Amino acid sequence: MKNIDLSSIKTPADIRNMNIEELTLLAAEMRRALMDKLSVHGGHVGPNLGMVEAVIALHYVFDTPQDKIIFDVSHQTYPHKMLTGRMEAFTDPAHYDDVTGYTNPSESEYDLYSLGHTSSAVALAAGLAKSRDMQGGKENVVAVIGDGSLSGGVAFEGLDYGATLGSNFIVVVNDNQMSIAENHGGIYADLRLLRNTNGTAEPNLFRAMGYAYRYVNYGNDLKSLIEMFRAVKDIDHPVVVHINTMKGLGLPVAEADKETFHFSAPFDLKTGAIKGETDGGPEDYSEHFAKEMLRKMKENGKVVAITSGTPGVLGFDKARRMEAGRQFVDVGIAEQAAVDVASGLAKGGMRPVAGFVSSFLQRAYDQFSQDIALNKQPATFVTFYGTMFGMNDETHLGFFDIALLSNIPDLLFLAPTCGEEFDAMLDWSIRQEETPVVIRTPGTVVASNPEIELLDDYSRPQYEIVRQGEKVALIGAGLMFGIMAQAADKLAEAGVKATLINPRNLSSLDTATLDTLKDYSVVVTAEDGIIDGGFGQKVASYLGEAPAKVINLGLPKEFLNRYDYSELKKRCGLTPEQIASTVLSTMK
Amino acid sequence: MKNIDLSSIKTPADIRNMNIEELTLLAAEMRRALMDKLSVHGGHVGPNLGMVEAVIALHYVFDTPQDKIIFDVSHQTYPHKMLTGRMEAFTDPAHYDDVTGYTNPSESEYDLYSLGHTSSAVALAAGLAKSRDMQGGKENVVAVIGDGSLSGGVAFEGLDYGATLGSNFIVVVNDNQMSIAENHGGIYADLRLLRNTNGTAEPNLFRAMGYAYRYVNYGNDLKSLIEMFRAVKDIDHPVVVHINTMKGLGLPVAEADKETFHFSAPFDLKTGAIKGETDGGPEDYSEHFAKEMLRKMKENGKVVAITSGTPGVLGFDKARRMEAGRQFVDVGIAEQAAVDVASGLAKGGMRPVAGFVSSFLQRAYDQFSQDIALNKQPATFVTFYGTMFGMNDETHLGFFDIALLSNIPDLLFLAPTCGEEFDAMLDWSIRQEETPVVIRTPGTVVASNPEIELLDDYSRPQYEIVRQGEKVALIGAGLMFGIMAQAADKLAEAGVKATLINPRNLSSLDTATLDTLKDYSVVVTAEDGIIDGGFGQKVASYLGEAPAKVINLGLPKEFLNRYDYSELKKRCGLTPEQIASTVLSTMK
Repeated sequence: MKNIDLSSIKTPADIRNMNIEELTLLAAEMRRALMDKLSVHGGHVGPNLGMVEAVIALHYVFDTPQDKIIFDVSHQTYPHKMLTGRMEAFTDPAHYDDVTGYTNPSESEYDLYSLGHTSSAVALAAGLAKSRDMQGGKENVVAVIGDGSLSGGVAFEGLDYGATLGSNFIVVVNDNQMSIAENHGGIYADLRLLRNTNGTAEPNLFRAMGYAYRYVNYGNDLKSLIEMFRAVKDIDHPVVVHINTMKGLGLPVAEADKETFHFSAPFDLKTGAIKGETDGGPEDYSEHFAKEMLRKMKENGKVVAITSGTPGVLGFDKARRMEAGRQFVDVGIAEQAAVDVASGLAKGGMRPVAGFVSSFLQRAYDQFSQDIALNKQPATFVTFYGTMFGMNDETHLGFFDIALLSNIPDLLFLAPTCGEEFDAMLDWSIRQEETPVVIRTPGTVVASNPEIELLDDYSRPQYEIVRQGEKVALIGAGLMFGIMAQAADKLAEAGVKATLINPRNLSSLDTATLDTLKDYSVVVTAEDGIIDGGFGQKVASYLGEAPAKVINLGLPKEFLNRYDYSELKKRCGLTPEQIASTVLSTMK
Repeated sequence: MKNIDLSSIKTPADIRNMNIEELTLLAAEMRRALMDKLSVHGGHVGPNLGMVEAVIALHYVFDTPQDKIIFDVSHQTYPHKMLTGRMEAFTDPAHYDDVTGYTNPSESEYDLYSLGHTSSAVALAAGLAKSRDMQGGKENVVAVIGDGSLSGGVAFEGLDYGATLGSNFIVVVNDNQMSIAENHGGIYADLRLLRNTNGTAEPNLFRAMGYAYRYVNYGNDLKSLIEMFRAVKDIDHPVVVHINTMKGLGLPVAEADKETFHFSAPFDLKTGAIKGETDGGPEDYSEHFAKEMLRKMKENGKVVAITSGTPGVLGFDKARRMEAGRQFVDVGIAEQAAVDVASGLAKGGMRPVAGFVSSFLQRAYDQFSQDIALNKQPATFVTFYGTMFGMNDETHLGFFDIALLSNIPDLLFLAPTCGEEFDAMLDWSIRQEETPVVIRTPGTVVASNPEIELLDDYSRPQYEIVRQGEKVALIGAGLMFGIMAQAADKLAEAGVKATLINPRNLSSLDTATLDTLKDYSVVVTAEDGIIDGGFGQKVASYLGEAPAKVINLGLPKEFLNRYDYSELKKRCGLTPEQIASTVLSTMK
């Protein structure tokens, strides 16, 4: 047995001559490198540690990149990146940031898609397989999808279509018995039954959908995996290979607490303690929301919190989920069902509050439109990680939600500017029983503004005029309100007394207030979302015939990737200094 | 056996004392009335004729409205309406238009939702059941879903969550062996296997998802249905009742041609011929598209048309599907998969063109954003039945698609104004391999404009200045271009020479052209979609600091229901006379 020099591995071809002992060593060294990087850099811990052997076996058996592999979500592709020309990004701290956390075609020809949302890999791969068939190709097409992602509707749509291909189509189901948190859904009983019977039992979900079915009980055993992938390579019909893996394998703290170590900030390898975490920092909206909701749940047995597989985003860790009991509902990764279950609960007289990562709620636009807004079901939806200060991966951007949801009729879109206002809006939304409401958390960390004017009723658009000025109006939505307030200060220094407005509501206009601005010199809107289709353009349209000049500030309609927050703010003219200067030059 | 007086049936209680012979007579008379109405009024023929017995049995056995039934899509609820206080709308021609074609809570307490999109009933019902459980209720909750709708992702999400309820939850799967056209997907082999084995075979999709399972082979036999519904009434766990029915039962032409008679305009009961249909009328975009596509498919083996269960909307009847062969793909009712399969096909080097009903494509926003636009896959998407002249049911509105899709980065949204321009844009979109493209058919009927200026490349926004005027600019998008041209004529009569512009591209601005309008007196935009989030607001925003007054015309952000087209146009100020008059009064 020789040593494995990770740096010598440039392409999968470099591992294809290894024997099983060498591959085993390779896996151990890759896992070691992953743990070292993850502990100082952070990232998706459990998904990657659990997939080391499977990824090695896939690249060992299949002739990538001629054979095509699409990894669902692609948050488990660190081992894949290590084997496909990007080892240094996992072994040399100076290069840790050379790669993104997801597959990315601009990094490598082995990466077919930039993916970050769950459940789409099977349908994408089915399209690739169909393309191959029509062109007479012979390459294998493989989709790799986790058990947690199987609950997403598009996964089923893709499986349903893929079954009809009648040609080579290999779906590897990586079953680590976990979603981000525990799994929820009827299919998971079947997966358990299959695991418990070494894949022999009926009913079998995959057979029922038209697939041949193979099971690998030791999904972290290279030999078993290689044998199985060899057995299905070049198969002439659709097959599901169900592999039983262990999330977080090799890192005791991650094996023991799979939910916490799904994704982690830098941590101590021994204790699992998050590095640099101190008490007393500002509370984030996840924590804040969970505490508020638990209080409301106790006061009112009709209050229900709903998540689609991301309870942590709502601040509901295991202990809080226990505390909430049946007042906490996790539908699994299934945003459409989350919205519809909220609709059904509201229809039945309950007070549902569903929370979503901003970037994921776009899966459910149709349900927001048809099953909530058209049917006027008074459910509340809270968006997290929206704004430019949410996640900055191109797949997880949080600044499209205003344009997406605020243009749906009869769906109230509220943008609180601080913690007090968020609380007041959440209170009201649960108290009332008329209106579907979206509330967008302003950034990640709760900021306080004790001077905010709170309302008893947010159903009608009613802007808060925080400072009355003249000739210049600054309307700052959500998180941008604070920046506009600072811009107003700058203007005051320059002798310009600006009217400062908190619009609160981004889905319809307070025309009475806007009418008072018609003869102003300049009206500036700022929002923490793309300008196109957003709030400011509604104002510009309304004031289109007025003498006032209207300037809309916000983000560009672009898929930005790993941007720097302050640089982006500057690029968009969203610093207080820039805003003040824009106003002054426009007034000339 | 006595006669059944349909007019005596006001509520389901009126049938609950009937014996099986009376119920059989009732079914026959209801079917007769349905045929009479459908043949003179049009509507969903096959789905309703196939469900007469099941709907009678449901209301006979279950204590509606205390027991809750949600009908998926609800296009099969004419018998339900007949039994729940709305008989006259099916027996008296003077009252045929008293009811909508879908369930509607404003019509009846027996209608829980206004539904028109497929596949959502199970998730909505699961929310209702959860609500009941939390409040200690005992009523039955029933979802009725067709085999065709089962392929929609949200149906699976709802089934997956519903299985975990552990309480009364009854899903009736109405299997008539048809979607709108034939079914596509792996699950249909399992449904067939179950039908062929009287429900006894494994694998069983529903058992695999965690449901108890019951099968009714004679799903149009009242006695069998009543026995089964009695058997599952008050059940204490989730169950699927799979009933085998015949679409179009009782009407020979509908039994023989299930696809044509899924929905039909008024027709002759004997021959099935559509009434008043004459040759030589204007071609519609469905016909036009299919012919164009078949021509392109022959020229280029890489061209593929994709539908999500609505081939007829794309003009692909059975004969054309045969002709297209493997170049026509139907993924079943699964909009998300349709977009992702298009993405995979484009990635593999094919030239996919997917067509959607405007109102249904909103199911796939996330896939348009992530899997097409972010990944820059050069697929083409054609929207049908968009504009205010599409369907006018509140569930099927076609005027939200501009706001929905034109604000996605890197997704080109084209709005042709006539048949020639549609063809040129479609040609270009298939020819190029860089850009994802959406093309919105301008209304339903193909209008010709031989004078249109066509481009070889539509990738960059480049407005056509059709007439150069001064001081007044009229920018008419898509179907609104023709109306703007007429308004320009009116203005010319009043001595005002307006610049008339066809913007072609609604997703980004031709700023060079807009810059020439800055010092105009009035710039008017008109689009056939909601103003909020649409094209005109982008123009208003861009010209926000310019002296020109900007007026955005378009539709209100409302769920309009069964509106009158010309009244709506007037309400929105979209007639040529109104536009001209608005311009003249603004110029003053």
